[in-house]
Amino acid sequence: MQKSLSVYDSDGSTFAPLVVIELALETKEEAIAWLLNRVRDKQQYGGAELLVEQLTPGAQGTEKVNPNVYVVGASWQRLLYGAEDVGLFKEFNDGSMRGFTYANKHNFKEFQGDGDGFLSMAECQYIIKHELDNLRAKDEAHVPGYPKMKLYPGKSVIRRMQSKGILVQVFPLHEKEELKRLSFSWYKNIKLSFQPLDDIRHYFGEGMALYFGFLEYFTLALIPMALIGIPYYLFDWEDYDKFTVFAGFNLVWCTVILELWKRLSASLAYGWGTLSRKKAFEEPRPGFHGVLGVNPVTGRAEPLYSNAKRQLRIYLVSIPFVLLCLYLSLYVMMIYFDMEGWALMIHDEEPTFWTGVLLFIPSIIYAVVIEIMNLIYRYAAEFLTGWENHRLKSTFQNHLVLKVLVFNFFNCFASLFYIAFVMQDMVLLRQSLATLLITSQILNQIMEAFLPYWLQRRRNKKAHKRMIKTMGDKELPLSEQVKLEADMSTYLGTFDDYLELFLLFGYVSLFSCVYPLAAVLVVLNNVTEVYSDAFKMCTVFKRPFSEPAANIGVWQLAFEAMSVIAVVTNCALIGMSPQVKSYFPESETQLILWVVGFEHFLLASKFILTFVIPDVPKHIQIKLSRLEFESLEALKKRKVVHAAAN
Amino acid sequence: MQKSLSVYDSDGSTFAPLVVIELALETKEEAIAWLLNRVRDKQQYGGAELLVEQLTPGAQGTEKVNPNVYVVGASWQRLLYGAEDVGLFKEFNDGSMRGFTYANKHNFKEFQGDGDGFLSMAECQYIIKHELDNLRAKDEAHVPGYPKMKLYPGKSVIRRMQSKGILVQVFPLHEKEELKRLSFSWYKNIKLSFQPLDDIRHYFGEGMALYFGFLEYFTLALIPMALIGIPYYLFDWEDYDKFTVFAGFNLVWCTVILELWKRLSASLAYGWGTLSRKKAFEEPRPGFHGVLGVNPVTGRAEPLYSNAKRQLRIYLVSIPFVLLCLYLSLYVMMIYFDMEGWALMIHDEEPTFWTGVLLFIPSIIYAVVIEIMNLIYRYAAEFLTGWENHRLKSTFQNHLVLKVLVFNFFNCFASLFYIAFVMQDMVLLRQSLATLLITSQILNQIMEAFLPYWLQRRRNKKAHKRMIKTMGDKELPLSEQVKLEADMSTYLGTFDDYLELFLLFGYVSLFSCVYPLAAVLVVLNNVTEVYSDAFKMCTVFKRPFSEPAANIGVWQLAFEAMSVIAVVTNCALIGMSPQVKSYFPESETQLILWVVGFEHFLLASKFILTFVIPDVPKHIQIKLSRLEFESLEALKKRKVVHAAAN
Repeated sequence: MQKSLSVYDSDGSTFAPLVVIELALETKEEAIAWLLNRVRDKQQYGGAELLVEQLTPGAQGTEKVNPNVYVVGASWQRLLYGAEDVGLFKEFNDGSMRGFTYANKHNFKEFQGDGDGFLSMAECQYIIKHELDNLRAKDEAHVPGYPKMKLYPGKSVIRRMQSKGILVQVFPLHEKEELKRLSFSWYKNIKLSFQPLDDIRHYFGEGMALYFGFLEYFTLALIPMALIGIPYYLFDWEDYDKFTVFAGFNLVWCTVILELWKRLSASLAYGWGTLSRKKAFEEPRPGFHGVLGVNPVTGRAEPLYSNAKRQLRIYLVSIPFVLLCLYLSLYVMMIYFDMEGWALMIHDEEPTFWTGVLLFIPSIIYAVVIEIMNLIYRYAAEFLTGWENHRLKSTFQNHLVLKVLVFNFFNCFASLFYIAFVMQDMVLLRQSLATLLITSQILNQIMEAFLPYWLQRRRNKKAHKRMIKTMGDKELPLSEQVKLEADMSTYLGTFDDYLELFLLFGYVSLFSCVYPLAAVLVVLNNVTEVYSDAFKMCTVFKRPFSEPAANIGVWQLAFEAMSVIAVVTNCALIGMSPQVKSYFPESETQLILWVVGFEHFLLASKFILTFVIPDVPKHIQIKLSRLEFESLEALKKRKVVHAAAN
Repeated sequence: MQKSLSVYDSDGSTFAPLVVIELALETKEEAIAWLLNRVRDKQQYGGAELLVEQLTPGAQGTEKVNPNVYVVGASWQRLLYGAEDVGLFKEFNDGSMRGFTYANKHNFKEFQGDGDGFLSMAECQYIIKHELDNLRAKDEAHVPGYPKMKLYPGKSVIRRMQSKGILVQVFPLHEKEELKRLSFSWYKNIKLSFQPLDDIRHYFGEGMALYFGFLEYFTLALIPMALIGIPYYLFDWEDYDKFTVFAGFNLVWCTVILELWKRLSASLAYGWGTLSRKKAFEEPRPGFHGVLGVNPVTGRAEPLYSNAKRQLRIYLVSIPFVLLCLYLSLYVMMIYFDMEGWALMIHDEEPTFWTGVLLFIPSIIYAVVIEIMNLIYRYAAEFLTGWENHRLKSTFQNHLVLKVLVFNFFNCFASLFYIAFVMQDMVLLRQSLATLLITSQILNQIMEAFLPYWLQRRRNKKAHKRMIKTMGDKELPLSEQVKLEADMSTYLGTFDDYLELFLLFGYVSLFSCVYPLAAVLVVLNNVTEVYSDAFKMCTVFKRPFSEPAANIGVWQLAFEAMSVIAVVTNCALIGMSPQVKSYFPESETQLILWVVGFEHFLLASKFILTFVIPDVPKHIQIKLSRLEFESLEALKKRKVVHAAAN
C-alpha cells in the first residue's frame, strides 16, 4: 500500500486514505456530522468503525472548490475483520484457498507480522465500500437536517444519501506507484507476452481481470481461424464453394473454445479465491423504490414492489418497445437495401472507379447508422430497465443484458441473414460483412478510447499546467490527487466491452466461412483493444471498485447461445454451397433432409459435450472437495465431543 | 415405533429391534465377537455405540436355521445424535424446515418429552445403517480369524465383510401395524383418491415416495391426453391427417408437465426436509477395488483405480459392446419386418379371420422378444458397469442408466421410427404401436407383480401353515418375523420402475398422435401399476432402507431428453401429414423448410421456457433464502461479538 500519502485522524495518528466520499456542496452541517459519526462509531453500536477525515484543500485553492470531500481509511485490524466479513478467500499454508478468518490469520501464507500488506489496496477498498454500504439506519426517522429524506431501521444510509443526491460520489483512490508499474508491464512496452492478469486482478479486482483474461483467451483462440483464413482468402478468393470445410471447422471451434474457457476461468477464479466464495445476501439496488413493507426473507423493513406490476410493465411496455425497435431496425435495413440497389444501378450503368467506390458507401453509412442506433437503444434500454424497478442489481443487469443483446444481435446481423438466406448473394454478403466489420471496429476504437482520452487531455491540460507552475517536479499532494481523480470519468463496468466482444464473436462464428479474413480482422482489433482498454482503465477513468467474480456470468450464456445459432447458420450455409448441392443433383429435398439431419446431430453432440466436459478441472475439483470434506469432518468431530460431554 | 417387539440387551434392558444383520453360517466366533464389540463400543473409541443382540431362535426350530442373526437397535439419545450426524431436516417451531441438532432439539415442532416418536422408524433404520456403514477399521490389519480379509485404517468394516461374503445381508425390519395401516390407506380399498405420499415417505423414505409421487403425477398429467384421445380414436379412426392438432398438443404437453413436475417435486422434497439437505461425502461403493493408496480429497487410505484404465474399459469394451447390442437389435427388427411382410402376404392372398389375426402375430412375437432382450441386456449392462469399476455408487448408477436407456430406447422405438419415417406407413405404425404397447404392458405386469407374488405365496404357504398350527391367531414372535422377512426377495431400487415409466412416456410423447388411444392405455396401465407396485412393496419384498432424495435425479434428465426427441418426431410427423402437405402443393422443399423452421422455433422456446420457469416455487424459494440469510447473519453476529471481545 502507498505509504507516502496519509492524513491525520481525530486522534492525531495517521492513516492511509483509501476511499473518497464527496458530499454535495450545500449539505447541511448536522447531516455531515451525523454521517461522520456513524462511520466512526464502534461496530457494536452499529457503526462502521472506520477512520474518516475531511480533506484539507491545497494551499493554492484560489478557485471555488467543494470542501465536503472526505477520505476514508481503517486500521489494519479493522480491515482484517472486514476481510472475514466479506468472505475473502486467501491462500492457506497448505496451498489451498480458504475463507479468511481473523482467529486463524497466522495460518495464511502471506500473513506476516500484524498483517500489513496481507490485503491488496483493491481488497481494502472493497472492504471499506462493503462496510459503508452496510451502515444501516438505527432509529433515525430521517437524515438529520433533511426531514424529507426518510430513513427506517435497517435502511442503508449511504444508499439513501446517494439516491437523494447529497452523496455525490464514493470512489477508491488510485495508487500512483502501483499504477505506473502495472501500466508498464501491461501496455506501455509493446511486446509479445500474456497480460499480467494477476497484477490486473490485484489492482482492479477479479471482474476486470476476468474480462481481460477472456479478451486474451478469445484472441488466442481466434489465431488458428485467422491462420487458416489467410490462405483461404488469398488463394480461393473467388472460389465460394470451398467454404464448406471452413464452416465445419468454425462449428467445432466455437463449441470447443467456450467449453475450454469455462475450465480456464474456473482455474483463474480458484487461484483468486472467488470460485468457492459464498455470495452475500443481495440488498435492493440503490434506484429501487416501493411501499415500505417487510421483506419475507430478512424480516427487515424494506420497500416492496409488487411483482405483478413489474410483470405488467415488462409485458405491456418493455416488450412492445423492444419489438418496435426491432421493426425500426428492419425498416432501416430495407432503406439500406434500396440504397445498395441504387448504387449498383449507377455502377452498372457507367462503371468507373468512383462508382466502384460508391458501391461501398451504403454499407458504410449503414454501419454508422447501426452503431448510432445501438447507442441510442442502449440508453433507452437502461431507462426502461430502471423503470421496471427490479429489486436486485443482478436481475436489473440480466434484464438489461437481454434487451440490449436481442436488439444488437438483430441490428447487426439481420441484414447479413437477409443477404445470406433470402437474397442468397454470397458476393454481397462478403462485401457487406467486410464493410460492417471494419467500420464498426474503427468507430468503436474511436468512441471507446480516443474520444475519452482526448476529452481527458483537454481537461487536464489546464489543471496540469497550473500544477507544474506551483509544484515543479514534486509529487502531487493528496488534495490535488483527489481533485484530479474526482474529475475523471466513471467507468461504468464491463458491459459495453463484453457486448463488443459478443458482436465480434458473432461476425466470426456466423459468417466467417464466406469471409475468412474476418478472424484476422478481429484478431487485429482485439490486439489493439487490449492496449486501448488497458490504457483507458489506467489513465482515463477513475479507479473502479473491484468486483469479486467467479466467471463472466451471463455473458457465458450469451456466447453459448451465439454458438448454437452459429451451428444452425453454418449448416445452412453448407447446405447452400454449390459443392454440397452437387452431391444431390436430382433432389433438393434429399439435400435439405441431410443438412437438417447433420445439424441435429451437431446440436445433440454440442449438448452432450457440454455435459461430458466438466466445467471445473479435475485438480481444482479435488481441492474443492477436500475443503468440503474437511468442514464436514470438523462438524462431525465437534458433535462427537459434544455428545461425549453430555 | 413398534413397542410390541423388543429384545434384551447385555445390560438387561430392552430395546426395539430396528435392523437385522445376518452373518454367514460358518463365520468364525472371533470375527463375530469383534464385530459385535465394535458395534457396541462408544463413539469416542471409534465404535458405533449401538445396541445389538443375537436373535434367540424360536422354540419350534426343528429345521436347520442360521444362528448368526443379530438385531440392532439404539437408545433414543443415540438416534437423535445420529439424526444430527446424517443431517436430517425436521420442521422447526416456526414452520420452516431446519437441520436437526441435538442441542436445539426442543425447538423442533414434533419433539416431545425425551424425543420418543420424533423420528420415524424408517429414519431410525436409516440412521443405524449410516452408523454401521461408518464403522471404520482402526489398526486392525484384517478381520479377526480371517487373515486374508485385509483391513486398513478407515476402511468401512461392514462393506469389507459384505464384499467378502461373511455378512450375508443387512436389512431393516417391517412394522406390522404400520404396514397394515399403510397398505389399507394405499391400495387395499380401491377408491378415487391421491396416494398417501406422506405415509409412504414415512414408511419407505423419500426416494420411494418420490417415485410414487411421480407415477401419480404422470398418470394425472396423461388424463387430458387420454380424454382428447378417446374421441379422436372413436370418430377419426381412418382420418390420418387430423393428427396435426394432436401432435401440436403433444408437444406443448410434454414440455409443460416436465417443468411443472420439477416444481412439484421441489415442494414435496422441501416438506420432507430433503431439498436443502447437504449431501454427505460419498464413500467408495462396496464392489470397488484397486491398489491401496491415499485419496487426495480425504487423505485416507483407500483403494485407488486409475481413471485412464477405466476410460479404456469404457471406450474399448463397453461402448463397442453397446453398439454390438444395438446392431443385434436392428437385426432382430429386420427379421420382424420380414415376418410382417410374410404375414401380410398370406393375408392378401386369402383374407380370412385367422389371417387377420395372423397379422398381429409378428408384432406380438417381436414385443416379447424385445422384452426378453431388454432383460438380458439389463444384466449384461450391470455386469459391464460393475467391471468398469466406478468408485462411487452415483457414477456407477449414471453409467448403468445411460447404457440401459440407450439400448432400451433403441430396442423399443427403432422399429416404430423405421415404420414412420422410412416406410411412411401410418397404418402399420398404428398397428405396431398398439401391439407393442399392449404386449409389453401385459408382460411387465406379470413379471413385476404376479410372478413374485406367486413365488412368495408358494414359499410362504408352508411356513404359514406351520405357523398357524403352533401359534393360532397370536402375533408372530420376533424370531419368526425376522426369519420370514429374511427370506423375502430384496427390492433392488426404483430403477426398473422408472425405466418402465420412461418407455411408456416415450410411446405417448413420440407417437400418440397416430394412435391417440396410447394415452388411454398408459393411464390404465399406470392405475394398475400403482396398485401392483404398492402391493409388491408391502408384501413381496423385504423392507428397503429409506433413501433420502430431493428429486428423481437422472430420470428428470432422461425424460427431458425424451421430450426433446418428441418435439423433433412430432414435427416430422406433422410435416408428413397429407393435411400439411396440401398447403405446399407445388414445392416439397418449401414444406420441409417450414417444418424445420417451426421445429427450431419450438426447440428454442422449450429451452427458453426451461430457463424462465423457476425450478423451485416462489414460496419455497423465500423459505430457503430466509434460512440462508439467517445463517449468514448469525455468523456475522458471532464475529462482531468476537471482535468486540478482542
